[in-house]
Amino acid sequence: MERNFERDLQILRERLLVMGGVAETMMHKAIQALVDRDEALAQAVLAHEEEMDLLCIEIDDRCLTLLALRQPMASDLRFIAAGIKINSDLERIGDQAVSIALRARDLIAQPQVKPLIDIPRMARLAQEMVRKSLDAFVRRDPDLARSVIEGDDQVDSLRDQVFRELLTYMMGDPGTIPRALELILVSRHLERIADHATNIAEDVIYIVRGEDVRERGDKELRKGLRLPGPKTA
Amino acid sequence: MERNFERDLQILRERLLVMGGVAETMMHKAIQALVDRDEALAQAVLAHEEEMDLLCIEIDDRCLTLLALRQPMASDLRFIAAGIKINSDLERIGDQAVSIALRARDLIAQPQVKPLIDIPRMARLAQEMVRKSLDAFVRRDPDLARSVIEGDDQVDSLRDQVFRELLTYMMGDPGTIPRALELILVSRHLERIADHATNIAEDVIYIVRGEDVRERGDKELRKGLRLPGPKTA
Repeated sequence: MERNFERDLQILRERLLVMGGVAETMMHKAIQALVDRDEALAQAVLAHEEEMDLLCIEIDDRCLTLLALRQPMASDLRFIAAGIKINSDLERIGDQAVSIALRARDLIAQPQVKPLIDIPRMARLAQEMVRKSLDAFVRRDPDLARSVIEGDDQVDSLRDQVFRELLTYMMGDPGTIPRALELILVSRHLERIADHATNIAEDVIYIVRGEDVRERGDKELRKGLRLPGPKTA
Repeated sequence: MERNFERDLQILRERLLVMGGVAETMMHKAIQALVDRDEALAQAVLAHEEEMDLLCIEIDDRCLTLLALRQPMASDLRFIAAGIKINSDLERIGDQAVSIALRARDLIAQPQVKPLIDIPRMARLAQEMVRKSLDAFVRRDPDLARSVIEGDDQVDSLRDQVFRELLTYMMGDPGTIPRALELILVSRHLERIADHATNIAEDVIYIVRGEDVRERGDKELRKGLRLPGPKTA
């Protein structure tokens, strides 16, 4: 029984990593579609949606079955409860990638506003945060998780930079407004992906430390880094 | 023991409703601050943040304790697992209300772009969705939950209307661009609140029906209503 339980937890861990891999692939393809103006790649993102949906349902079922049949205590219970939340964060990362792919498809059909530099940079950071948060989850490494939470500030500052730059384009040439707006919204999707990675990292700290740092520790950590401010420039 | 368990589930239900009440208050004040250009009201939203954080931690603890000590089966297990998710959706609704309040504070300091009509309408719909989803949760009413999911289309169509109208303002007078952009982002926060209400409604259907309609049933339901399309106009 005990050995089976360990094996089931290991499978849960692996399935969450598979889902994380799909989410990363979707993000990568969505941004590449936008940068390379490649419509087939944008379409490829949408093809992953069903895979994500099925993984999400499967993982939810696994978590509930483990809770029902195994009566886990303490750290295993926290692990499974965090699994439920991480599952939902990964699903929503996939949703954001789909939204980026849809905007990419719109933008490809129109002339380019400007070569993209900060948005791909923001995407790389967000992807790195997702990957690190899942690494931290597998290794139960709270320090790695904390570094993900700190990375969120860089994403926010790039988001503000993207916003300011595109604002200049819009003010200078109102003809660019609809396309520049789409790009601003792409940067908001990336911001939300980074937020989900932060949620995952907070869950990892919670699993390991056994106390909820999402509000307490995180706010203290943030306090040392910057003052909480408005979400936009 | 059995009676205590029932009582604990009842307390969990009540605490989630208290949290839903706080989330609704925050939304209401944030939009009222924007419409009435009332800075004190925007500030009042921020004062609710700590209350939300504490409620979120308390409810998470309650769910985990129930899972650990009671070994619930079947429908009770689904109820508690849904409680974990609803808790996190309500917390994020509070976060969106805070973002709206911060934008309201920025906008109040500048001349008004236009009198607001569709944004308050969108806010009323989103609030109604949150309230109905929690009602559906309390009454375990899948039909009410389905009506919430259907309401999401109206919110999306108002979001597109807000987008198109503000685009016209921006194109006509580039001086309005920064303020119009803030208003567009307010409409995106409302859209996300409606999405969270939809998530809660899907969890209610899941509790009652005991099968995951989040992907299967919901997609079929949506198919009857509209084709899935890009997220923006």
